[in-house]
Amino acid sequence: MQNRKIILASASPRRRELMALAGYEFEIKVSNKEETYRSTEPNEIVKELSLLKASDIAEQVEQKDVIIIGADTVVAYDGKILGKPQSKEDAFRMLKSFQGKKHQVYTGVAILKFDSNGNETVINEAVKTDVYVNSMSDEEILNYIESDNVMDKAGAYGIQGKFAIHIEKIEGDYYNVVGLPISFIYEALK
Amino acid sequence: MQNRKIILASASPRRRELMALAGYEFEIKVSNKEETYRSTEPNEIVKELSLLKASDIAEQVEQKDVIIIGADTVVAYDGKILGKPQSKEDAFRMLKSFQGKKHQVYTGVAILKFDSNGNETVINEAVKTDVYVNSMSDEEILNYIESDNVMDKAGAYGIQGKFAIHIEKIEGDYYNVVGLPISFIYEALK
Repeated sequence: MQNRKIILASASPRRRELMALAGYEFEIKVSNKEETYRSTEPNEIVKELSLLKASDIAEQVEQKDVIIIGADTVVAYDGKILGKPQSKEDAFRMLKSFQGKKHQVYTGVAILKFDSNGNETVINEAVKTDVYVNSMSDEEILNYIESDNVMDKAGAYGIQGKFAIHIEKIEGDYYNVVGLPISFIYEALK
Repeated sequence: MQNRKIILASASPRRRELMALAGYEFEIKVSNKEETYRSTEPNEIVKELSLLKASDIAEQVEQKDVIIIGADTVVAYDGKILGKPQSKEDAFRMLKSFQGKKHQVYTGVAILKFDSNGNETVINEAVKTDVYVNSMSDEEILNYIESDNVMDKAGAYGIQGKFAIHIEKIEGDYYNVVGLPISFIYEALK
């Protein structure tokens, strides 16, 4: 598709799998920079964080014939970001808040392209997927919390696991919820 | 969730995986009945075929304390069903027809519930997911055909594989496209 070296600035095994599924050859370099941001809206925050990750890696490599991809995914409800739960009670509160309703998953993507002369082109966007969760009783929420590793998941659920039975529908890219909007990236790299 | 025996009337390994993911214990019995139908619309055809499969299995078992689930999935564009391609040229024509456009995936579901007295309740619905495919050049279509096992796939693509890079978004249940609308089934079995 193109001949520049691709560097994925992410430690996520799911992002790695999606890039491989799409047929890309790439290296992985993980930014250790502290994730601070100034934005206030979820879609702006993920844009900023993805750019921060990609830019940090760009400073560490020779900026010629290389493409650096940063990504950051959040779950948002009512304009607020839901992080990983601090406790099972916290997970219960999160799931209870958005059961029976629509929430958003945003993945910010930063693509830094350096040509053979070192000229840089930047693509920095947030891709949104709406997720509609069916109504859940308290018992169903508790059953789900016991059945999956919710403490490790932003928003206290994973779309790929047992929570699937509670998702009525999505509007957007499924893989964006998994962590990387792979069709967006493919179009941006063409 | 309930204590009746569940029989999945489908040979599909993906349906089996989804039922297991959802936490159900079930047996598999596959109908060998010829798949004939009278309906003309894709959503009606899958309803009819899922019911035919489930009813065929129902005739082979004791109709007490048992739930039989039949399913049939089709890809439809412009009101017509796209089956498995007959040749690579046929796959090219299919993909060319719906690139840059929206098409539908319908899964018909038939759930036959028999209580301890042998009384039957029937749920028979078609679940729709809209799939939006990005514009694709002829070269991209040919590349995809060479990269995946398209001859084995209705509509000449699989949403779980390399075609993901060409899907802009979906509206509906992702797992419905994979072959089983698992949240619909969960709600129907509650």
